Amino acid sequence: MEMGFIGLGGMGEPMARNLIKAGHTLKIYNRTHSRAEALVSHGATLAETAAAACTAGVVATMLADDAAVESVVFGEHGVLEGLPRGGVHISHSTISTNLSRRLVEAHRQREQMFMAAPVFGRPDAAQAARLIVVAAGPPGAVERCHTALEAIGRKLFVIGPDAPAANTVKLAGNFLIASMLETLGEAFALLRKSGVDPANFLEIMVGSFFQSPVYENYGKIIAEQRYEPAGFKLRLGLKDVRLIMAAADEAASPMPIASLIRDNMISGVAQGLGDLDWSAVARVAALKSGLKT
Amino acid sequence: MEMGFIGLGGMGEPMARNLIKAGHTLKIYNRTHSRAEALVSHGATLAETAAAACTAGVVATMLADDAAVESVVFGEHGVLEGLPRGGVHISHSTISTNLSRRLVEAHRQREQMFMAAPVFGRPDAAQAARLIVVAAGPPGAVERCHTALEAIGRKLFVIGPDAPAANTVKLAGNFLIASMLETLGEAFALLRKSGVDPANFLEIMVGSFFQSPVYENYGKIIAEQRYEPAGFKLRLGLKDVRLIMAAADEAASPMPIASLIRDNMISGVAQGLGDLDWSAVARVAALKSGLKT
Amino acid sequence: MEMGFIGLGGMGEPMARNLIKAGHTLKIYNRTHSRAEALVSHGATLAETAAAACTAGVVATMLADDAAVESVVFGEHGVLEGLPRGGVHISHSTISTNLSRRLVEAHRQREQMFMAAPVFGRPDAAQAARLIVVAAGPPGAVERCHTALEAIGRKLFVIGPDAPAANTVKLAGNFLIASMLETLGEAFALLRKSGVDPANFLEIMVGSFFQSPVYENYGKIIAEQRYEPAGFKLRLGLKDVRLIMAAADEAASPMPIASLIRDNMISGVAQGLGDLDWSAVARVAALKSGLKT
Amino acid sequence: MEMGFIGLGGMGEPMARNLIKAGHTLKIYNRTHSRAEALVSHGATLAETAAAACTAGVVATMLADDAAVESVVFGEHGVLEGLPRGGVHISHSTISTNLSRRLVEAHRQREQMFMAAPVFGRPDAAQAARLIVVAAGPPGAVERCHTALEAIGRKLFVIGPDAPAANTVKLAGNFLIASMLETLGEAFALLRKSGVDPANFLEIMVGSFFQSPVYENYGKIIAEQRYEPAGFKLRLGLKDVRLIMAAADEAASPMPIASLIRDNMISGVAQGLGDLDWSAVARVAALKSGLKT
Repeated sequence: MEMGFIGLGGMGEPMARNLIKAGHTLKIYNRTHSRAEALVSHGATLAETAAAACTAGVVATMLADDAAVESVVFGEHGVLEGLPRGGVHISHSTISTNLSRRLVEAHRQREQMFMAAPVFGRPDAAQAARLIVVAAGPPGAVERCHTALEAIGRKLFVIGPDAPAANTVKLAGNFLIASMLETLGEAFALLRKSGVDPANFLEIMVGSFFQSPVYENYGKIIAEQRYEPAGFKLRLGLKDVRLIMAAADEAASPMPIASLIRDNMISGVAQGLGDLDWSAVARVAALKSGLKT
Repeated sequence: MEMGFIGLGGMGEPMARNLIKAGHTLKIYNRTHSRAEALVSHGATLAETAAAACTAGVVATMLADDAAVESVVFGEHGVLEGLPRGGVHISHSTISTNLSRRLVEAHRQREQMFMAAPVFGRPDAAQAARLIVVAAGPPGAVERCHTALEAIGRKLFVIGPDAPAANTVKLAGNFLIASMLETLGEAFALLRKSGVDPANFLEIMVGSFFQSPVYENYGKIIAEQRYEPAGFKLRLGLKDVRLIMAAADEAASPMPIASLIRDNMISGVAQGLGDLDWSAVARVAALKSGLKT
Repeated sequence: MEMGFIGLGGMGEPMARNLIKAGHTLKIYNRTHSRAEALVSHGATLAETAAAACTAGVVATMLADDAAVESVVFGEHGVLEGLPRGGVHISHSTISTNLSRRLVEAHRQREQMFMAAPVFGRPDAAQAARLIVVAAGPPGAVERCHTALEAIGRKLFVIGPDAPAANTVKLAGNFLIASMLETLGEAFALLRKSGVDPANFLEIMVGSFFQSPVYENYGKIIAEQRYEPAGFKLRLGLKDVRLIMAAADEAASPMPIASLIRDNMISGVAQGLGDLDWSAVARVAALKSGLKT
Repeated sequence: MEMGFIGLGGMGEPMARNLIKAGHTLKIYNRTHSRAEALVSHGATLAETAAAACTAGVVATMLADDAAVESVVFGEHGVLEGLPRGGVHISHSTISTNLSRRLVEAHRQREQMFMAAPVFGRPDAAQAARLIVVAAGPPGAVERCHTALEAIGRKLFVIGPDAPAANTVKLAGNFLIASMLETLGEAFALLRKSGVDPANFLEIMVGSFFQSPVYENYGKIIAEQRYEPAGFKLRLGLKDVRLIMAAADEAASPMPIASLIRDNMISGVAQGLGDLDWSAVARVAALKSGLKT
């Protein structure tokens, strides 16, 4: 399929590469051109503007935050402007449910379609085409883009026609992970102060009823305090927790664990841990219990 | 092996039954005799007092709480009194780390050995001999009781000579589960208020990186709001959270998520949910978000 | 002094009236003209646009939220446009520190001066010219507007040249009050469930070391559960708590009590209490403890 | 009146001294005799046991915690044993509502009367006979001991016949103070990180609607970070917060702010601040926001 791809950061670049590998023809755009060049050597065409990347009628965006998406979509020479009538915008970014709703409406007014297809996974999963993709949008759009959605991940969940629902699922999923990180942080601090090796505890948990990869992988990182290099920085984790809380506020649904994590992540940033992996929220817990690391 | 078994409640009775099935000879004691009779028909001998159940030199206890253990161990005709010198007390109960430390010392003074061997699992796991057993105690004691520890569960983790460490692991493990319940409760309330079916969300999570049985089983219970019959009552969950917080207090390690869960469980009890399954902490979250159930 | 006044709501209208009473000549503007008419009969002149209210060189604004201020200041025919070079914008609204900083900069670029002068007090205090005014801004601006600041309140605190500092003080002050409300809510729920009359408790507290008007007034409202009519609605209180949390986030300073209050206020809104007085956060506490009101 | 006085610590000693000054005849008892000697030179008689201090039919106790009260009352040669039938036990200690209820019952069984009369105030207030006394107990007991209750404080509140109610009031009052400390801690951290002097903020608050002595005094301590010498140590504050939480648990009334304060105080103790004044919970807040003090 001919399609555009906008946003070639640590996640977007390997996603675009996997689309090319799967046989799609890409017109790419990135604010800083240099990041796009490697892909050109793999056959992608460089677009001068976001709008220019949309001419084929399908465009995927993978951007850092709400502001970046707003700028690329609503800005001059942006997606809204460049996408033909009937075209599809696939948004992979982790954005607020509020922005997602505004995107549905803006595209609808232009007779374009908006599909939210946020992904779970870190850059290594993006490279290996092992992302989990959760898509929601108009049935026609999903059908038309199916191969593109399957090319980037190992599992695709299509959950319905309401795009913001996919964003809510993404945020709720990140909340589950963040809550697990904070929980492990508190538990490990207790264990360390009680003279029990967290690695032993983790082995028991993972060896019995918490046999899930996130517990195993993050549990190891925390037990070994290996917060560098960051797979996903604490300050970005904080950004996501803010989105969760915004969604909770809009839905009038209190999320006290999210609030608590937010405070601890702010504390982490305040204490200079912002560039560590977001699992370093466990270090914040350790510091509060008087441990030095 | 000849051994005593004290405490034949919903957990203790099937554990004792599995010990008999595995070929052990049991002298059993329960405060209310009636519960012991079924086991007698399976070959167990009835002891008139806790002390009388200890004469074989090994005794296992599976009791409801600290008070029950204190009474059975320190009371008249209790375990301390009845266990011969060199004997082993295996404590399966979920008790405070503080009591565990006192038991180590009391048995040591009588030249007896104390082993903590708390178990993870609900009554159905106890019946199926599928418990997870975490044991800590003097090496000699562990070796001597190995077959008894293996007979009741599907996995045995021996973590060292310090008995209270096993109790800390048990409490930290329960904390992980309780935190997961609260987290799912908050996430599902958000999803429901946002018009997303929690069952779909759960399928995605369990189908990707939370492939663990506790997420799957408890997630279903919460998604279906099937809090009755209770596998483990909310008011007992609250009791366990109190033990976690007592351990955290003693170790001077703050556990804000435990505090938050405690408040929500108290709220649940106050609103008449105390006899529902402890996963009904998710209903407390739903009520706070204005949902009726 | 000749000056403009923009925003004639429940707070702004009586403030403007007191300025007229103190001898100032007002050119007023309100989005909906009808609210302005009463003041015209007291001698104020009606301006057709926000810009037109600024021609005298001093303008005060008292608006509902960030969005209203942004629209009135940055919008077409707005304050920025209408205020002469050297003019002063006095902002009485409760706004984010972030917007305050942007206003400093925007006015500076136009060679205008920005002063933040948020006020503490409810509509009855505004009517009685009994507000507490906290002002910060360029010394020249403060001096020039001194009489206008004194005309609306019973106490004026000038805290320095940095305008956003006054907004931070306002938000921190509201945080103190909100925290007191939540605290009284939790304490009264405990007392009620323990069979102690909160009114007795309040009398002791106010009669000993909490002899402050906010404790006395709000304490009575909560003890008597007299949440209507609302002096300040819960949903507006929630808006202010959001501003506090935004300030905390920007300053990288965790405020867990603010987070907790936010969640309880969201819960209150979700349970239909949004139009009650914000002290009804105490009802949320009561409901959580199983009380019906 | 002839009466006994048990417990001559930092609070009890000056209280006993003020009773003597007011004309009462005291038989005193303290576990360590040395502390009692100064009072003997002021006319008090030394009792060899707690029981011996009770013979006059009225005895006041002022002890450190539940354990001390249990030992002095229920122990050998204790108050229960020594108090004549019809005698009155005035308990000034800050104890759990649970123990208070047990004391009511134990004294009732011996046909003695129990009155709870906890006090608010630090040692300097005890010396100046400026304590706030909250009494509850059988009407006859209150009447009989009225002069003794008035001699130690500046204000006496009699709240009814149910002794534990006075303990609940004491705990709820301490909760109000602890919550104020945490609130000021969070607010001051925000102000400091925003470049606003907390002393200025405090002056505005105390100069407007928080004109209460606790805000003024504790506010100054926190603004100046003058946590030594401790008027009331953080580790004792933590003890009181535990009692509050125990009361909340018994009454099935969640108190999330108390939970939050408990975690922060545990964190303070873990970080070596346990012997500072309990207002140092504000330092915990500062450390979490990345400030060094």
